[in-house]
Formats: sequence, structure tokens, C-alpha cells
Amino acid sequence: MTSRDEIEKRFKALQQKICNALEQMDGKSTFLSDNWTREAGGGGLTRVLTDGRVIEKGGVNFSAVHGIAPKKITEALGLSESDFYATGVSIVLHPQNPWMPIIHMNIRYFEMEPNNEKGEKTYWFGGGIDLTPHYVDPADAGFFHQSLKGVCDKTDPAYYQRFKKWADDYFYIKHRQETRGIGGIFFDRLNDKSESHSFDELWDFVVNVGEQFIPIYRHYVEKYAEKAFDDSHKQWQLLRRGRYVEFNLVWDKGTKFGLDTEGRTESILMSLPKNASWTYDYQPMENSAEEKTLNLLKKDINWISYA
Amino acid sequence: MTSRDEIEKRFKALQQKICNALEQMDGKSTFLSDNWTREAGGGGLTRVLTDGRVIEKGGVNFSAVHGIAPKKITEALGLSESDFYATGVSIVLHPQNPWMPIIHMNIRYFEMEPNNEKGEKTYWFGGGIDLTPHYVDPADAGFFHQSLKGVCDKTDPAYYQRFKKWADDYFYIKHRQETRGIGGIFFDRLNDKSESHSFDELWDFVVNVGEQFIPIYRHYVEKYAEKAFDDSHKQWQLLRRGRYVEFNLVWDKGTKFGLDTEGRTESILMSLPKNASWTYDYQPMENSAEEKTLNLLKKDINWISYA
Repeated sequence: MTSRDEIEKRFKALQQKICNALEQMDGKSTFLSDNWTREAGGGGLTRVLTDGRVIEKGGVNFSAVHGIAPKKITEALGLSESDFYATGVSIVLHPQNPWMPIIHMNIRYFEMEPNNEKGEKTYWFGGGIDLTPHYVDPADAGFFHQSLKGVCDKTDPAYYQRFKKWADDYFYIKHRQETRGIGGIFFDRLNDKSESHSFDELWDFVVNVGEQFIPIYRHYVEKYAEKAFDDSHKQWQLLRRGRYVEFNLVWDKGTKFGLDTEGRTESILMSLPKNASWTYDYQPMENSAEEKTLNLLKKDINWISYA
Repeated sequence: MTSRDEIEKRFKALQQKICNALEQMDGKSTFLSDNWTREAGGGGLTRVLTDGRVIEKGGVNFSAVHGIAPKKITEALGLSESDFYATGVSIVLHPQNPWMPIIHMNIRYFEMEPNNEKGEKTYWFGGGIDLTPHYVDPADAGFFHQSLKGVCDKTDPAYYQRFKKWADDYFYIKHRQETRGIGGIFFDRLNDKSESHSFDELWDFVVNVGEQFIPIYRHYVEKYAEKAFDDSHKQWQLLRRGRYVEFNLVWDKGTKFGLDTEGRTESILMSLPKNASWTYDYQPMENSAEEKTLNLLKKDINWISYA
């Protein structure tokens, strides 16, 4: 069984690999490194790239923290006081070009051990990749989902459908009755009790998800990073970023939980764009690309059928 | 005792009066009117001004809604199924000029009547005015608080201290350890049981708060609407707007409640600025105006002492 230290090391290496690949694709800007420690235990390395050719503002975070689990977690899980350990890589990239999507990836490993005789140590994996195009192109969405299905199928033929639905339900902006984007895959609390897979099989799955990030992003960079756009596209991008902010601050459980338990605010909110915009009661023109996108921000679309 | 209809009428008249005064001060743009109805009962009039001389994006909302109270309210109050009625005026103005503050006012009246024999009808008033300067000037903050103290003192010499503290506690961005601005007054659940004042005295107080809005705003318009600024001031304004967005979407109970109970999203989120910005780990320069402002975004400052 892969050890905690090996997982942490692999996540760190993946962060480095992804940052290198992104710098190479961007070709203009590089990642700053911000090492931080957490008073109550552990720390992280936040890497931020701004004002690049491709990426306007993006973060690739690694963290490995431990200590007494916040009461909010243990209460939610019905546990007494527990030690926890959490490590993961978390990415959000906001592109310059409105034809490029916003991308988000997170992979994480969690351990929890109640501080009493009876308490059994538990662990689980979580994560996913999801995409928020400012303009939804069904064929691109098909490519994205096909690529995620490929990763899922290597471990379990049932995973893609299950985790695709999970993403549809999770990345939903309830007060707008819109999905945040075209979803992707989302999974949480996977372990060898919840799944018919061993610890190492699940760990391989998580690593495969992480390794798929760059090939996916490369597709969009090559196709869209230099595509011409005008002010109206930029305005729409700013409005869609506004919706992204709304989702992250109002509904995203990870963000809320982090802010509520005195997580590191700057690392949590690196997910927010450089700028965003709000217009009262914006209505897209009939048959416009913006209206077509809005009509595709729905749950339960079978994107694979467009691949 | 002032009737529900009279309260509603007075709120509507106040909305009109404030919009007229703001249009006259702005001198460039005018308010659009958006009448809406709520399927489950009632409706409102949302008025929005954009791209003015003084105001970049501002809303002055009136609403009067009724029906079965959302479960989240009745459960929080420990009540069985109840009819409710709520009316109020709510204002947020985001100015063009970074030297101008963002201002927020809300006054509201609420009735609740459980649908059973024992249930006693209750009502209360709530509201307040608070200010979010992009740059905090202590003398201006003194003027603002002195003006609110004047309104409070007319009804109760204890109100200002009590409601000033309430605003400090309410408008607090916990994850930034900053207040949203310089506070003001905030009050809720005032009725003739909680207070040693009659219904009509409390109603007079609420009307006085509403009537104070224009004289306060006029002070800032006359002093700052045309004050010269440069790009660095504008950048800071955008960052402070980012914090405003964070407060409203993460911590503001009214916003969360509205979005959670299927309130009218566009009217609730008219509080958001036309644009806002986020920079990773922004640090102001030493002894800069920005750093001075950050040092004044604290609870429990005695602003009156600067008046």
C-alpha cells in the first residue's frame, strides 16, 4: 500500500510537472512560488502565474496539512475529536482568450483518526477535473468528456457515468439554474470500503486523473489561445467569470469549508479571476453564441455523443 | 398604529424620492424601472442606474412580498408553518470615483403569523446604513457616524452605540479579518416587545433612517465625485470591490438567505459592482494610502471622536 509520504511526494512532483508544462505552453510568464506553513501543522506551496500569453491568472497549489480536525468536519462525520491529514493538488486557470475555457482540477488524499480507543483510522481519495468554457462548443465538450472517460475506464467502466453525474450535481449554480460549465468528473470519499478496488488501484486512478490534465489543456491552448476575439467576447467572458465567482463563493463546499475553518485565504481564493463583471439582468441576443452557450449550461447532457 | 398598507406606501414613496434625488445629483444617467411579481405572492420594483457621472452601478429596490414563509425561516425561529409578509427598501450604490464610498442602506418591515390556533402574530423592523469607502478618511467617517448618531438619538440615546456595534459585528469579512468598511448602524427584530418604544416610535425611527440617506450621500458626492484619481486608485477600488463581493456572497445573511429560498436573484445581486478584481496576496506599499485604509478596517473604532 502506497504510503502517505509517497503520495505527498507524487503530488508535489505532479505540481512541478504541470507548472513546467504550463510555462512551456504559455511561453511568456512563469510561476511565482509561495511556500507557506500552517501554524497548527503542515503547509504548502502555492504557485501563481499572472499576465501570461495564455493564462491571465492561474494557480497550481500543493498542500499537506495535519493536526486536530476542525470541529465542523468531525461533527459532520459524527466523529469525536480526531487527528487528520490532508494532501492534494488543486488547479484553477483563467485564460486571457474568451474562446479558451476556465479549467479546474483537484486531487486529494485524506486521513482521519479519532482520538479514542475505539476509533478506527479511515482514509479516502477525492478529486476531479471540470471545465467552464465561456463559449460552449459541443465537439470540444465531447473531446473533454471522452478524455475523462478514457481515464475512468482504465480503473472502472462504471466510474465515468457515476462521476460525470456527480460533477453535474456539484457544479450547479442553484440561484441561476445554470451549471457552472460543462462539468467533467467529480468524486469524493473513495476508499477500499466504498469501492471494489484496492487502495493502490484507487491511488493509480487519482494519479491518472492528475496526469490527464496537461493533455486536455494542451488541446484548448493549441486550438484557441490565439483565436481572434472582440470586445463583446471579452464582456461575455467577464460576465461568465462573475458566475464563476458566484459559484465558488456561494455554493462551493470546498471554498466555504476552507474559509470557515480558517484555511489559508489566499490559497483558497486563488481560484478567483483577475477581474469579473456583473450587469443587471443581462439577456443575450436571440440566436447569439452567448444564448447558445446559456442553453447548454444544463445538467445531464450526454457530451460523449458529440465527441 | 401605522398599517401595513401605510408602511408599504411610505417605503414606495421613499424609493421614488431617493431615486429622484440621486438622478439630480448624478446629472447624467437615470434609473431604469423593472416591475416584477413573485409567483407565490407580492412583487417589487427594482430600479437600476448604470454608467452615470457619479454612480457606476447602483440599485434602489422596493419589494413587498407575502405567502407561506420559507421553511428555513420558520425552522430558524422555531415556528410551525406560517404566513409572512415583508416589505422594504434596499440600496447599494457603487460609485465611479475611487474617492467616493460604496453606500448601502436597507429598511424593512416583517410580519409572521403561524397557521395554528395558538400562533401569535409577530412583526418587527430591521435595517441600517453602512459605508464602504475605498479610502478611509477618519474625518469623513466621523461625519458619517455623527449623522447616524443624530438619527438614533431622536428615538433612543442608547441606539447609536448598540446599533454601531451590531454593524461592526455584522459587516465583518471573517476570512480576511477585515471589516467591509467603516460600518454604520445595523438593527433587526425591533418591536414593542424587544424595545421600550411603541410600534409608531419604531416606525418613525426607520423612516428617519431612510430620510437620512440622501443628506449623507450628498456630502460625499459634493466632496469627492469630481476628485482627480489615477490608475493606481482605480486598481485599489477594484480590489476593494472584490472584498465587497466576498462579503456579500460568503457572509451576508440576507444574500445567502435570499439565494437559498429562491428569492429574485437579479434584485438580490444588484448589490454587486459592475466590475471587481482579485490579485494573489496583494500587499500595499508601506505608509501608502492603501495601507492606512487597511489599518482602519477594524471593529470598535470610535469614529465619532474624529467628527
